[in-house]
Amino acid sequence: MEFKILLKEKIDYIEELLRLYMPKEEGYQKTVIEAMNYSLNAGGKRLRPILALEACRVVGGNEKDAIPFAIAIEMIHTYSLIHDDLPALDNDDFRRGKPSNHKVYGEAMGILAGDALLNYAFEVMLSNSVDKEDPGKYLKAINEVAKGSGIYGMIGGQVVDVESENQQIPKEKLDYIHMNKTAAMIVGAMRAGAIVGGANSEQLEDITNYAKNIGLSFQIVDDILDIVGDEKKLGKKVGSDIENNKSTYPSILGLDKSKEIALCLINEAKDNISKLSEDVAFLNGLADYIIAREY
Amino acid sequence: MEFKILLKEKIDYIEELLRLYMPKEEGYQKTVIEAMNYSLNAGGKRLRPILALEACRVVGGNEKDAIPFAIAIEMIHTYSLIHDDLPALDNDDFRRGKPSNHKVYGEAMGILAGDALLNYAFEVMLSNSVDKEDPGKYLKAINEVAKGSGIYGMIGGQVVDVESENQQIPKEKLDYIHMNKTAAMIVGAMRAGAIVGGANSEQLEDITNYAKNIGLSFQIVDDILDIVGDEKKLGKKVGSDIENNKSTYPSILGLDKSKEIALCLINEAKDNISKLSEDVAFLNGLADYIIAREY
Repeated sequence: MEFKILLKEKIDYIEELLRLYMPKEEGYQKTVIEAMNYSLNAGGKRLRPILALEACRVVGGNEKDAIPFAIAIEMIHTYSLIHDDLPALDNDDFRRGKPSNHKVYGEAMGILAGDALLNYAFEVMLSNSVDKEDPGKYLKAINEVAKGSGIYGMIGGQVVDVESENQQIPKEKLDYIHMNKTAAMIVGAMRAGAIVGGANSEQLEDITNYAKNIGLSFQIVDDILDIVGDEKKLGKKVGSDIENNKSTYPSILGLDKSKEIALCLINEAKDNISKLSEDVAFLNGLADYIIAREY
Repeated sequence: MEFKILLKEKIDYIEELLRLYMPKEEGYQKTVIEAMNYSLNAGGKRLRPILALEACRVVGGNEKDAIPFAIAIEMIHTYSLIHDDLPALDNDDFRRGKPSNHKVYGEAMGILAGDALLNYAFEVMLSNSVDKEDPGKYLKAINEVAKGSGIYGMIGGQVVDVESENQQIPKEKLDYIHMNKTAAMIVGAMRAGAIVGGANSEQLEDITNYAKNIGLSFQIVDDILDIVGDEKKLGKKVGSDIENNKSTYPSILGLDKSKEIALCLINEAKDNISKLSEDVAFLNGLADYIIAREY
């Protein structure tokens, strides 16, 4: 229970920060800014920004230094959802119970608002780093975010996911999709936060392994919930993976084996950070929460 | 004549560099990389990367230091063209005489390839800057590119352009579109190159003014050529602005006045850089070339 209260506090904090960093809805280009902010304001678990701040803190840094990174990462995550929902991709009319971006602002503006959010994410990170005393550290952190969101990270995973629709794929390829579409940005968020926090190489490795393990587990649990989840609690339709003949952990390995692997990854994640700091209670709680979400 | 030979040499050089910096077409995500490279390879004037290198050189820098920026800026320009051609935006089936990206790879891949190019542009700039001795300088230069391509630059211009379709708009708004959709990335390219080249604040201001003036002139000439241009020489259809009832310099100010303003801006541009260096012959030639393209 205590963890859930803490998580809610952190979500509220991120949303407060987001409002501070959102571009002002003014000028000739007002519409695209409204479209950007509409999706930024649409809720969500805010997992990536929370993890960026937490990674900074647990390695001994001041989490305030990681704020522009946390915000930028949520902007990148949001742009990827806007483009994912477009008719040419997943063609989703709703996102978190609200009409998706292109349903409100039209397809052209949806595409441009996504582009704008990706670009603005870099603007936020860069403009808040140029005057720092140690610009090299900030440059490295931005580089981690860029790697996480590109063709060797999130976009790579999205592309292979799109290409694998309606076909059964081997587990190796499914792991590539999960690791890149979902885990890569969690890794990027936490590595960026840790670098800004001044992590040494050992700490950075621990953080990276934790992020990979919870990222993959998160996606496996998503696959499981699409079969056994409660639509009301989840706030979204279940059964769409089977409907779309999509390869998932349960479709390849069965439900029980999938649950076993998800749990095993969570235990590994907690093990990864056990020597990192005295104060990893929240990261442990989050790892448990990922697997306990619904079953 | 000599200028055109030099320009051709520089275009060839940029295309050689582009091939070096393009991501390798391998791995699960091969398709999106093919799609990215298809459009990067599709030709064009390579104006922005040439100007990034030249800005670096004329302020006394080593143009090799600006290469990752030149490449990244061409990647950003290319992504903007891919997204512009999409059915929801300009719905163009051809670009420079070749099928547009989404006609070859499909709409989903066109959207993702554009996203990937924008992200990869930052990856190229960041990964080539992290190990520099003066990271602060490189951070500033990347920041200039990001500003040029975002909502207060290129995307801002695109959005207002899309929203102004089929309506007559005042000159002030048209200037906003031209300055942002076209000139902002030229400004970003030249400022980034100049910063990497170690420009002082006076040099940077001269470069900025030159870039703004040739950028706006370039777009005005484009408006003019859409009326008086030769389709064969231009390699594209003319008359589309009138067909689409689009506001242009000629539609607002008439053809003669538009030519006069374009020429005036070019003279101003040459004036801006007259005290910058002994060696601004190429930049002067380019300014003349912009206005002499066709009429």
